[in-house]
Amino acid sequence: MLKEKTDLFGPVVDIDVLNLKSLAARAKPVIGPGEFGYISEGSDDGYTMRCNTTAFDDVKMLPRVLRGVEQPNQQTEFMGVQLDSPLLTAPIAGNTLAHPSGEIGLAKGAKEAGIMMAQSTFASKTIAETAAVSAGAPYMFQLYMPKDWAYCQYLLDEAREANAKAIILTADSTLGGYRELDVINHYHLRGKIANLEGYNTGQCGVGAGGLFKESMQKLDLALIDKLAAYSELPIIIKGIQTPQDATAAIEAGAAGIYVSNHGGRQLDGAPAAIETLPAIAKAVDQRVPIIFDGGVQRGTHVLKALALGADLVGVGRPFSYGLALGGWQGVRNVANQLKNEINIAMQLTGCQTIADVQKMTCQTRFK
Amino acid sequence: MLKEKTDLFGPVVDIDVLNLKSLAARAKPVIGPGEFGYISEGSDDGYTMRCNTTAFDDVKMLPRVLRGVEQPNQQTEFMGVQLDSPLLTAPIAGNTLAHPSGEIGLAKGAKEAGIMMAQSTFASKTIAETAAVSAGAPYMFQLYMPKDWAYCQYLLDEAREANAKAIILTADSTLGGYRELDVINHYHLRGKIANLEGYNTGQCGVGAGGLFKESMQKLDLALIDKLAAYSELPIIIKGIQTPQDATAAIEAGAAGIYVSNHGGRQLDGAPAAIETLPAIAKAVDQRVPIIFDGGVQRGTHVLKALALGADLVGVGRPFSYGLALGGWQGVRNVANQLKNEINIAMQLTGCQTIADVQKMTCQTRFK
Amino acid sequence: MLKEKTDLFGPVVDIDVLNLKSLAARAKPVIGPGEFGYISEGSDDGYTMRCNTTAFDDVKMLPRVLRGVEQPNQQTEFMGVQLDSPLLTAPIAGNTLAHPSGEIGLAKGAKEAGIMMAQSTFASKTIAETAAVSAGAPYMFQLYMPKDWAYCQYLLDEAREANAKAIILTADSTLGGYRELDVINHYHLRGKIANLEGYNTGQCGVGAGGLFKESMQKLDLALIDKLAAYSELPIIIKGIQTPQDATAAIEAGAAGIYVSNHGGRQLDGAPAAIETLPAIAKAVDQRVPIIFDGGVQRGTHVLKALALGADLVGVGRPFSYGLALGGWQGVRNVANQLKNEINIAMQLTGCQTIADVQKMTCQTRFK
Amino acid sequence: MLKEKTDLFGPVVDIDVLNLKSLAARAKPVIGPGEFGYISEGSDDGYTMRCNTTAFDDVKMLPRVLRGVEQPNQQTEFMGVQLDSPLLTAPIAGNTLAHPSGEIGLAKGAKEAGIMMAQSTFASKTIAETAAVSAGAPYMFQLYMPKDWAYCQYLLDEAREANAKAIILTADSTLGGYRELDVINHYHLRGKIANLEGYNTGQCGVGAGGLFKESMQKLDLALIDKLAAYSELPIIIKGIQTPQDATAAIEAGAAGIYVSNHGGRQLDGAPAAIETLPAIAKAVDQRVPIIFDGGVQRGTHVLKALALGADLVGVGRPFSYGLALGGWQGVRNVANQLKNEINIAMQLTGCQTIADVQKMTCQTRFK
Repeated sequence: MLKEKTDLFGPVVDIDVLNLKSLAARAKPVIGPGEFGYISEGSDDGYTMRCNTTAFDDVKMLPRVLRGVEQPNQQTEFMGVQLDSPLLTAPIAGNTLAHPSGEIGLAKGAKEAGIMMAQSTFASKTIAETAAVSAGAPYMFQLYMPKDWAYCQYLLDEAREANAKAIILTADSTLGGYRELDVINHYHLRGKIANLEGYNTGQCGVGAGGLFKESMQKLDLALIDKLAAYSELPIIIKGIQTPQDATAAIEAGAAGIYVSNHGGRQLDGAPAAIETLPAIAKAVDQRVPIIFDGGVQRGTHVLKALALGADLVGVGRPFSYGLALGGWQGVRNVANQLKNEINIAMQLTGCQTIADVQKMTCQTRFK
Repeated sequence: MLKEKTDLFGPVVDIDVLNLKSLAARAKPVIGPGEFGYISEGSDDGYTMRCNTTAFDDVKMLPRVLRGVEQPNQQTEFMGVQLDSPLLTAPIAGNTLAHPSGEIGLAKGAKEAGIMMAQSTFASKTIAETAAVSAGAPYMFQLYMPKDWAYCQYLLDEAREANAKAIILTADSTLGGYRELDVINHYHLRGKIANLEGYNTGQCGVGAGGLFKESMQKLDLALIDKLAAYSELPIIIKGIQTPQDATAAIEAGAAGIYVSNHGGRQLDGAPAAIETLPAIAKAVDQRVPIIFDGGVQRGTHVLKALALGADLVGVGRPFSYGLALGGWQGVRNVANQLKNEINIAMQLTGCQTIADVQKMTCQTRFK
Repeated sequence: MLKEKTDLFGPVVDIDVLNLKSLAARAKPVIGPGEFGYISEGSDDGYTMRCNTTAFDDVKMLPRVLRGVEQPNQQTEFMGVQLDSPLLTAPIAGNTLAHPSGEIGLAKGAKEAGIMMAQSTFASKTIAETAAVSAGAPYMFQLYMPKDWAYCQYLLDEAREANAKAIILTADSTLGGYRELDVINHYHLRGKIANLEGYNTGQCGVGAGGLFKESMQKLDLALIDKLAAYSELPIIIKGIQTPQDATAAIEAGAAGIYVSNHGGRQLDGAPAAIETLPAIAKAVDQRVPIIFDGGVQRGTHVLKALALGADLVGVGRPFSYGLALGGWQGVRNVANQLKNEINIAMQLTGCQTIADVQKMTCQTRFK
Repeated sequence: MLKEKTDLFGPVVDIDVLNLKSLAARAKPVIGPGEFGYISEGSDDGYTMRCNTTAFDDVKMLPRVLRGVEQPNQQTEFMGVQLDSPLLTAPIAGNTLAHPSGEIGLAKGAKEAGIMMAQSTFASKTIAETAAVSAGAPYMFQLYMPKDWAYCQYLLDEAREANAKAIILTADSTLGGYRELDVINHYHLRGKIANLEGYNTGQCGVGAGGLFKESMQKLDLALIDKLAAYSELPIIIKGIQTPQDATAAIEAGAAGIYVSNHGGRQLDGAPAAIETLPAIAKAVDQRVPIIFDGGVQRGTHVLKALALGADLVGVGRPFSYGLALGGWQGVRNVANQLKNEINIAMQLTGCQTIADVQKMTCQTRFK
């Protein structure tokens, strides 16, 4: 039974979350076909996107018994911040597509669930608006590197002022993947980009469709130092899929590695994200923390990612679907379902703490 | 043509058993949707449950010929007990969900078929009631460890008095797996837990739904000695999925190892049970006997489990379906179909005895 | 355009054979449901039967070019007999189920196609009847070992008199596989067993259903010498699936090895026949010739079997379907389609002769 | 919105190309069932044809980031010719089946797209006609070796006069694969073979159905020198599937190796073309350039082929479908879609040039 509230930009209700994978079909009519296509799609044939989830089946956990585990504790620390669960709302553009509250609802839900939130450059709300509702809750800012350095400075200033814990520089999207559903639906990302409007470019109404054009294509390793020096914030590189790039980024000053293939929306034909994690974790060798996202639908997926080397696990589309269905309460409900599944999986694998999960050995063909 | 009898708590009839896998669809309308959901389901996505059966296809038997085999003999001994076949009715809770005779029918059918029976703590009938019909037939008692030591003592006393051959301590269920069909069906295990009612807690009508709450979560290796010392019965640990836990349990006093993933109802993402057997058998190295269950649907599955290291092979849901369809006769019919298939498979693989089966080499990727 | 003839026990017509796999659906209504079930089915879940054919996909041929091949020659010699193609009509029981001419039609079609024919003990026609139509064409007799040695002597006498080139002793069927379609269809093999009626047992009308009961279960290696000594014919052992049994049979006097899993009708859970061939061929090491059958549907399958070690390749059900559809002409049409496909595959792999095919290297995971 | 033109033998319109795989269904009604069957089909069961495309999934590209890539450049050189993209319209017979302009439209579209074109011996247009529209655009001539040396001389003369860059000798088709769709459709390749009519054989109207009969079956390595000596053009051998044949051809004078299984139309049961490429590239060791075709449907497939050793990548059926739908504009549209996908894939894998792509390491089980 859903209780309606309307206090935060649109309907806010508790939703029943049977599991994360069931949310897409429920959210689709709420979101609308073009917008849903944009959120849900992968690139080309969607092969990498599908593999992201199915590849978890190739990681088998071995349940341990009689180890005195009771009431597992999934609290963890990430970059000095205490979290109730090793979860992150992965940065997604334009969340007002899903719900009028957009990133504000996402931030509020994440805060209530005690998990980390990341806001996209292409968010529908300004950093300041989102930071206001976060009110001290852990928060990171994702940066699509603009061509315009002054605009970049504006964004970094806003992020620092909003007390962001880190800047996540997305390195895998110097151009958009080929996404056929948008072509079929004649869909162009609509709506204002709040962070762009906050910065007075004089260009009124630069739509989201032109956004990648505004972004810098020729990214290189020197950028890490430049961003760190200006922002005085840790720089995390998102879109790392090889040990070579992880090592290079760390040596160039990266404070964290974010393993991701952008939810299968960029290069189709890349391996499943979880498949790339073990080699990267080995190369990183705990020098910096690792964030992981890619196809996570279950508490067991979270455990598998942690066991293979992640410190924080991002979930993207399901939080947007939760937002669409219940506003910030829906976001919290999604997080709570995951936390519930994580709790069961920790107890059944014999893990008392997240550190235990990270020491667990899994059977897998990924190296 | 079914002949109706009604002598043992409900209809007792001979049923035709084409094969074990065909029973679920026939039993579903007899059992009812919520109850059938509870019996048939696995946890999360049901991946481990499905793998339990399909993984048998990755074990290939190599038929041997011209070895003078005739009328194979599937009799075997388990823990000093003679059995007509190396089969066990794996412990399942609340069998009155399937048939009014519950565990009494199960015990009677097992006895008539000459196989081993195991009764769950959460049985619908008391140990004494079941023992009465077993009347000397081989019988084991499965223990969900209660928080209340006095209640545990009561159960162990009852089991010893009923002449149980061993106590099977379930170690893999310190909390319930996430089973979505129960959520979808709004199903809560109903009906009395006979063994709980026999023990006067003063709490009238403690339903089965709250049972795991009554069970101890923090199990450890020291418990094995404690149970053995009090009961003076062999303690078998159920839910072993790793060589490490098998070794630890034996060193802590376990008299048997029960390899199982609880029919895929606990941790989804665990390997198929048959996949875990060879490494465990190697670690056990015949120090104690091994029981196996997980997805067995065919006589050939029984042979494969024996060849990979099992001494006794448990079958769960199919016996409950047989019970639902024919009472104790249905249980016997299911056992007889399996025995018939085992006989054919022994003859065709060139095995005269169960010891021959256990020496057979199979082709498999499991190590 | 089919031309009807009726000269040989029933309609004899030319049939179009698009490919072998298309014949089953066409033959089913001609044969009738129970009989078709009996011919087409495998045992248990039909897993081994399906693998027999699909496993050919795991053998890849590497086409060679510019090797001066022209008009490939698929003639070959088997046990001193010249054949137009390395093909055998694998022994199948009761071919009057398919067509009134039964084994007579099969023998006539095989003769016209210039390939080897094998007749089952449980044939619908006597050895003498079939031999009459073969009239010097190559012919082997398949023996289900009877319990009654006198009856066995009768059969061997008949076979020798009919000028059989060899006796094929079936070793894999000391009891029948579990075939569910017969249970579902309430089907029992009907019709007379001609070879049984020729031998005056005094038991009138012993039906085929009881045949395995008449057969000896306890076969051993000594039987090879006994049969060879009495018949003075080469003894080929059918149903070999391991190198160990191949070696043992040769050392016990076998003149040929017949690799087969009985078309997947006996032990379900055995490997695909083609999967077992390389190891057996290595063990046999050309000491005796090798016959292979199991799932052959294509000329490329024949080449793959030859490349992995076979000298003669049996095809079973498709010949019975051809017989059902066109009498002996249908049998010849099936053989000719295979010969056509073999011709194409030889040319395209750069093989001028069958010896070239046998030297071809394939990519395969089978060892 | 399509704009109709009619200037070049039939309708010429711009077509929307969502992706290459979507073209077949659109082109089918335009081409007609028999002709479409002939163009689209593979041999036997179509297994090799299907594997050609699906095997690309077994090659995983590892996206690299922060490498300063911007506006990737897909221009390349092949045998001294500059191309805008490493693409080739693979030789296909009888393109008037698809569109009245036939090879003239194909050549015009290839020229406009800046890619290489290859014309089949069995083209619907003469070499001279096609060369006229190519007007200096890169062009190669594919040769089915005729039995009649004088006719071969005529073809080579025409090709040299048309300024062909090379002769592609097809070595894998000394006889046609077994293509069932033609049998089912009672389809025989119709229409004139222009190159045959240009040569006055005195045999009027030799249809395409008899073409392979006119072709030489007994090809050998000596032919390479003979063709090179007469034509004074580089000879590329098409249909190479093994390192052995690649080495032999180079040693016999081949100026290029064309890895192909004829689109899965010849030997069914051969490996996917991409699967054979790495071993051949290793054997070739850059002594001569390598052309590859087989199942290419995506820009990522082109990158994978280049990374595994190809210098030029052929695409066959999709260009004929583009031709059917839009004449030469359709051919150009198909090429442009591929170029667009290649551009995205280069940027996302961090490759600035085709040379970078060829140095990229992929994860694959192919050796």
